[in-house]
Amino acid sequence: LALMTDWHDWQDTRVDGERLWNRIVALGEIGAIAGPNGELGCARLALTDADREGRDLVTGWMRDLGLTVTIDAIGNVVATRPGTDPRAAAVMTGSHIDTVATGGRFDGNLGVLAGLEVIETLETLDIATRRPVSVAFFTDEEGARFAPDMLGSLVYVGGMALEEALDIAATDDDARLGDELVRIGYAGPFPCPAAAAPHAYVELHIEQGPILEDEGVTIGVVEGVQGISWTELAITGRSAHAGTTPMRLRRDPGFVAAAITTFVRGLTKQLAGAQVATVGRIDVRPNLVNVVPATATITVDLRNTDEATLVVAERALDAEVARLAEAESVSVTSRSLARFEPVEFDPVTVALVEATAQRLGYSTRRLPSGAGHDAQMLARVCPTAMIFTPSVDGLSHNIAEHTTPEDVTAGANVLLQTLLQLADVAD
Amino acid sequence: LALMTDWHDWQDTRVDGERLWNRIVALGEIGAIAGPNGELGCARLALTDADREGRDLVTGWMRDLGLTVTIDAIGNVVATRPGTDPRAAAVMTGSHIDTVATGGRFDGNLGVLAGLEVIETLETLDIATRRPVSVAFFTDEEGARFAPDMLGSLVYVGGMALEEALDIAATDDDARLGDELVRIGYAGPFPCPAAAAPHAYVELHIEQGPILEDEGVTIGVVEGVQGISWTELAITGRSAHAGTTPMRLRRDPGFVAAAITTFVRGLTKQLAGAQVATVGRIDVRPNLVNVVPATATITVDLRNTDEATLVVAERALDAEVARLAEAESVSVTSRSLARFEPVEFDPVTVALVEATAQRLGYSTRRLPSGAGHDAQMLARVCPTAMIFTPSVDGLSHNIAEHTTPEDVTAGANVLLQTLLQLADVAD
Repeated sequence: LALMTDWHDWQDTRVDGERLWNRIVALGEIGAIAGPNGELGCARLALTDADREGRDLVTGWMRDLGLTVTIDAIGNVVATRPGTDPRAAAVMTGSHIDTVATGGRFDGNLGVLAGLEVIETLETLDIATRRPVSVAFFTDEEGARFAPDMLGSLVYVGGMALEEALDIAATDDDARLGDELVRIGYAGPFPCPAAAAPHAYVELHIEQGPILEDEGVTIGVVEGVQGISWTELAITGRSAHAGTTPMRLRRDPGFVAAAITTFVRGLTKQLAGAQVATVGRIDVRPNLVNVVPATATITVDLRNTDEATLVVAERALDAEVARLAEAESVSVTSRSLARFEPVEFDPVTVALVEATAQRLGYSTRRLPSGAGHDAQMLARVCPTAMIFTPSVDGLSHNIAEHTTPEDVTAGANVLLQTLLQLADVAD
Repeated sequence: LALMTDWHDWQDTRVDGERLWNRIVALGEIGAIAGPNGELGCARLALTDADREGRDLVTGWMRDLGLTVTIDAIGNVVATRPGTDPRAAAVMTGSHIDTVATGGRFDGNLGVLAGLEVIETLETLDIATRRPVSVAFFTDEEGARFAPDMLGSLVYVGGMALEEALDIAATDDDARLGDELVRIGYAGPFPCPAAAAPHAYVELHIEQGPILEDEGVTIGVVEGVQGISWTELAITGRSAHAGTTPMRLRRDPGFVAAAITTFVRGLTKQLAGAQVATVGRIDVRPNLVNVVPATATITVDLRNTDEATLVVAERALDAEVARLAEAESVSVTSRSLARFEPVEFDPVTVALVEATAQRLGYSTRRLPSGAGHDAQMLARVCPTAMIFTPSVDGLSHNIAEHTTPEDVTAGANVLLQTLLQLADVAD
């Protein structure tokens, strides 16, 4: 704080909400798609031509601000504004600018452009910080074209070998990730994983859920990311005539699928409030009105912020599936589709976000993130926190995804003030 | 019985099981399809070229026996062996020879060819009956190409106007039923509905279910046909992120679909033993592992031999659907796909079948039919009963459909002895 010309000036500093909004709109025009009610969404799948165009636009803005732009070997882009202490590690913010096929204009983009806005605010007001401030966008956060998701940040922190990542094949086309990086001109010269960890990482993101809106809260203070357990259950019974087969002789995989679905709903009531469970996918064969199904395949998505409770939920599911399989004489094949342990963000940085938002006069609520974010990868190497802004109707990965200009500005101001405090703290 | 040369001869009369089996095999060669394990099935959809070929073969056999063959305006074929009393109404047996697209060789065909075998036995042994004996095959029993099913027998008994039936369009192609009848040469000159009802109707059919095999019983004595209630439930909730949406804010149509499925299973335990319930079809959108579904559509198939209980089941389903819709804040649109009241066969004719089978030394079991049959249409106009033979593994509408030669012969002998008694009774 000693470097600031005036404590009160620093506290009163605010972003230019309109400038930020205009950038969100401008970036959203690349890969724009329209919804049935005139909503404007975005389709910029990772490493496509649309992604390149978006990257070119954002890196152009970065260079316009005189920032040092580095592109690493997995295509992550980091723009840095120097601090006054040449030895100090940078405070980093960022997110991603790739989207899902029917995505919105805010998911990821908000965090990147708000970071840029923070830096432009510092430039405009000529505010110096002891630490450098960086804004990054990470490659392929959505995982919609190349799995897994959060790929760029995963490689950035050393969680996956670069060569392995470059060799990933696209899910729905013939492309190889490394080839596509070269093709769009974003196979950069900088090493990945990064040579040094940031001093801290704070990411602004839309909530992608309904909690903040439902409770009328402006700023979500994210304590961590839920652990995720995805299981596919393939149930095989015996196809039979719906009219001629007595109930006692049925081996009905559709019934078992339904019983599992209602069971996991009950599980969420038994376990801690943070436990969520979803059966999002069900495929029944032959799927005819008058035939007891031969097979049913479902997915069970279990999430919890607490690893121990998540394990309890998984074991309870396993036990119930075994019980149902025996009772109905069906066979069940269980396959794990994904398993991530919960991530806890740094309590001090989380508290800093909360205190900062409250000082700015915003209502706050602590909550976990139900979705994955680049921040959970950065949390492996540095103190990390996230700021959530409300999502209208809780919608995300949806053309109708929306966050109001007021909430966008609020989130960016919390990011600005949080980064300012982090950037000024001596090592 | 006075007309028989010898009471004991008559009682000892048996069909030629091998001749019957050979006809089943020969008819099965028309439209034959092979299963993965070498099973031989049949695809003779109503009024196709394959159906014509099958009809030609069977009517040829009828004419070879010197029977009077009539073809009516909806394509029903009736072959009659005269009785000694010119004023007596005929005793009729029969079934159908059309199949579903992946059908077997026994469903329908058995009843027609066993009826033919009964008549050939009478011819061969020169047994005279007071009443004529007729064997019929009715058009489009399966309803697989032209809905509804049991169409030919429905029109035969006056349950649907002829012109309406002739105007039915095919489900999966551009054909009109009346045009197809003409095309294959089976738009006959005889009036339909029939001018006079048979004296009685007894149909031999495969069970199409597992009960007889499960209990080791040879002859099923069919007391009636279950009532059927088919309902489609279209449930609309709110698509949401599986990670970020708390359970209390979910409006999950997939959960409601599952809860209905488990509810109807419970309903079958609460209600009488004859109540069956099946959720055979479920379609969920968008059907993704990490998305709470936006919509779910299911079908509920309820069947009972008792109309009052079936109504109770329907009302209980309605009430539970309404309760779930309110609890989960989803909307549900309910649509009836089919509704048939139960049919009770004539108790005297049913008892005659039972006594006859037991006199022949076969184990018997009374049971309802879970599937629809031409007999339920004939039951509207004359005393009617059915004889079931076991289905291996309970399979039907399946290439692997099978009934053993021994059971085929047993069923045909029960049919023979039952028809003989009915044909001899004076008006």
